[in-house]
Amino acid sequence: MSDVAPEAARELNVRSQDPLCASASLSHLDDELTPTGHFFIRNHFAIPRLDPSSWALSVWGEVERPFMLRYEDLKGLPSKEVVCLLECAGNSRSTMQPPAEGVPWDHGAVGTARWRGVPVAAVLEQASLRPNATNVLFEGADFGKERTAPGVLAPTEGSYAMSLPLEKALHPDTMLAYEMNGESLPAEHGYPVRLLVPGWYGMASVKWLVNIRVLNQPFRGFHENDYYVFVAEGERDTPIGQRVTTIRVKSLITWPGRGGLIPTGTHRIRGVAWSGQGVISQVEVSTDNGRSWHQAALQEPQSPYAWQRWEYQWEVRKPGYYLIRARATDDKSNTQPLQAPWNFRGYAVNSTHTVPVTVRPGD
Amino acid sequence: MSDVAPEAARELNVRSQDPLCASASLSHLDDELTPTGHFFIRNHFAIPRLDPSSWALSVWGEVERPFMLRYEDLKGLPSKEVVCLLECAGNSRSTMQPPAEGVPWDHGAVGTARWRGVPVAAVLEQASLRPNATNVLFEGADFGKERTAPGVLAPTEGSYAMSLPLEKALHPDTMLAYEMNGESLPAEHGYPVRLLVPGWYGMASVKWLVNIRVLNQPFRGFHENDYYVFVAEGERDTPIGQRVTTIRVKSLITWPGRGGLIPTGTHRIRGVAWSGQGVISQVEVSTDNGRSWHQAALQEPQSPYAWQRWEYQWEVRKPGYYLIRARATDDKSNTQPLQAPWNFRGYAVNSTHTVPVTVRPGD
Repeated sequence: MSDVAPEAARELNVRSQDPLCASASLSHLDDELTPTGHFFIRNHFAIPRLDPSSWALSVWGEVERPFMLRYEDLKGLPSKEVVCLLECAGNSRSTMQPPAEGVPWDHGAVGTARWRGVPVAAVLEQASLRPNATNVLFEGADFGKERTAPGVLAPTEGSYAMSLPLEKALHPDTMLAYEMNGESLPAEHGYPVRLLVPGWYGMASVKWLVNIRVLNQPFRGFHENDYYVFVAEGERDTPIGQRVTTIRVKSLITWPGRGGLIPTGTHRIRGVAWSGQGVISQVEVSTDNGRSWHQAALQEPQSPYAWQRWEYQWEVRKPGYYLIRARATDDKSNTQPLQAPWNFRGYAVNSTHTVPVTVRPGD
Repeated sequence: MSDVAPEAARELNVRSQDPLCASASLSHLDDELTPTGHFFIRNHFAIPRLDPSSWALSVWGEVERPFMLRYEDLKGLPSKEVVCLLECAGNSRSTMQPPAEGVPWDHGAVGTARWRGVPVAAVLEQASLRPNATNVLFEGADFGKERTAPGVLAPTEGSYAMSLPLEKALHPDTMLAYEMNGESLPAEHGYPVRLLVPGWYGMASVKWLVNIRVLNQPFRGFHENDYYVFVAEGERDTPIGQRVTTIRVKSLITWPGRGGLIPTGTHRIRGVAWSGQGVISQVEVSTDNGRSWHQAALQEPQSPYAWQRWEYQWEVRKPGYYLIRARATDDKSNTQPLQAPWNFRGYAVNSTHTVPVTVRPGD
């Protein structure tokens, strides 16, 4: 079940080999669309190698007409394109103090791609939901023993599965995606078909999808209720915490990089910003560690689910040691904190990204 | 000038390939003496491959009798053994927020070894200091263009050099070391001869030593005055900050590890503690993120410069999510802060080490 980092991770920074987890360098996140080779990879188990000629998606449970959907059938249905960002729930975890458990992600577990697929709603309509349907469970072909601690595997095998409340499953942009940036999904991103849940952290966008089961009650599963949950420090009789869902407002500085050395003069500080709750309404930049803030120029959103690029012209006349910060606010008035609330597993870290830069006398 | 990570870094975590920088896993720092293969490596340039049959150490400057000391001559002088810890000035840097520039060290850039060598004082006595001697400059055979920012090399080449005030150079335990843990120094640790400066961060213990120059005034050098210095954030007309010298009091938890999963019951939390200013007088452990502290059992120091092992028997009855902290205090009443003072380059980080651990119901 061991994965050797595939060719696909060649331009990424590998954080874990087995399962394969790899993040992008910030300098590669400077574009509207992230090339697939620079798109982060977060697996839980070995990559399943599925053959689309034998692949089929079971649609069953609280439906009148359970059926199996074949790959060619899916591709024959009316499809749509969505430009959508995915961010790993653990992105930026390594910047949290005290330290959290889990893959020590830097900031590069995020990317924006163009996805093509078929709305889940169209497939569920074909199956005809029963009136008691409340939740929909999505299951991937990937399975194994989850690592519950460094070197500690869970006692039993399980597959990767996540549920959505019915309303989210039926959202017109929640889709069965089969293309990424104009090509079939690569194996490491869920070939042949993955779920895409715009606005939620990546853990919900189940890859290598093989099963859609409509439920008449909430699902109780390991990844959903024991793993991707906010838990506080302290004694605890039950391990269940609040589930991680919607992406928090956030921005990253893609240039300059940590430890950059630049001359006095005028520089284009730039980056990307996003929120799972709306579009970005402003990005502010501080070059004095948050004492004063300046409005950045903000690109119009290309989609409600994409990041927006921003830039700020910095005229710096005095050499010195600068801490550059960026802070995004969305149109629902959510804004980034200087320090995101701590949680034991280090999820949803959206503290203002801070980059130390040395300014030397100009030439 | 490129270094492929040598066999010596096989059991270390490589943080930089060129120059080679590699740290130990915390679980390998559990012993009184760190095996050489688990001892961190911090180079600035490619490793010089020196032949002891042609190596010679120049001793000159403000002395009456400048001379060259050959390897066999050095080994013929009266020698002594010192058990001494070395810690990289940037150790634990990656835990500092906002982020600092520099090699993103975790906690493993520290180790304790047994060194054999000849006191610098004996060699300077042979050369006979002039009355105006005030400082001693130690220069290594390693040289190149220093990296002043990611991907940015300094315009000119230089060798690695550090000076000591005369009093520190003449301290009876400041020595020209040629053995580490009973063997000749390995190439990556300074073969054939390195300086050993007990109590100071590792940057002072110049490797591949070829030059001792006695000065009549303080030295002004890149690594000493522009690189290993405490600098604050902000505009700055001059880059000179306070020099990094004495090792701050610190402790690390070597078991359990980050993200560990353990059953309810009794566990031996353990680690090491040290200070460049004295011996450790107490180590306290908190299992509730610093709300309450408990005395750990502390090993007697095997040398004034070695770390001391400690352990604490933790009886934990309730499952939950715990943050374990350790805090050391030395006999000069220096103690670790919850958060070390921030500095731009991330030096001397001695915040209390904190480890998240999940306690599950016992079997």
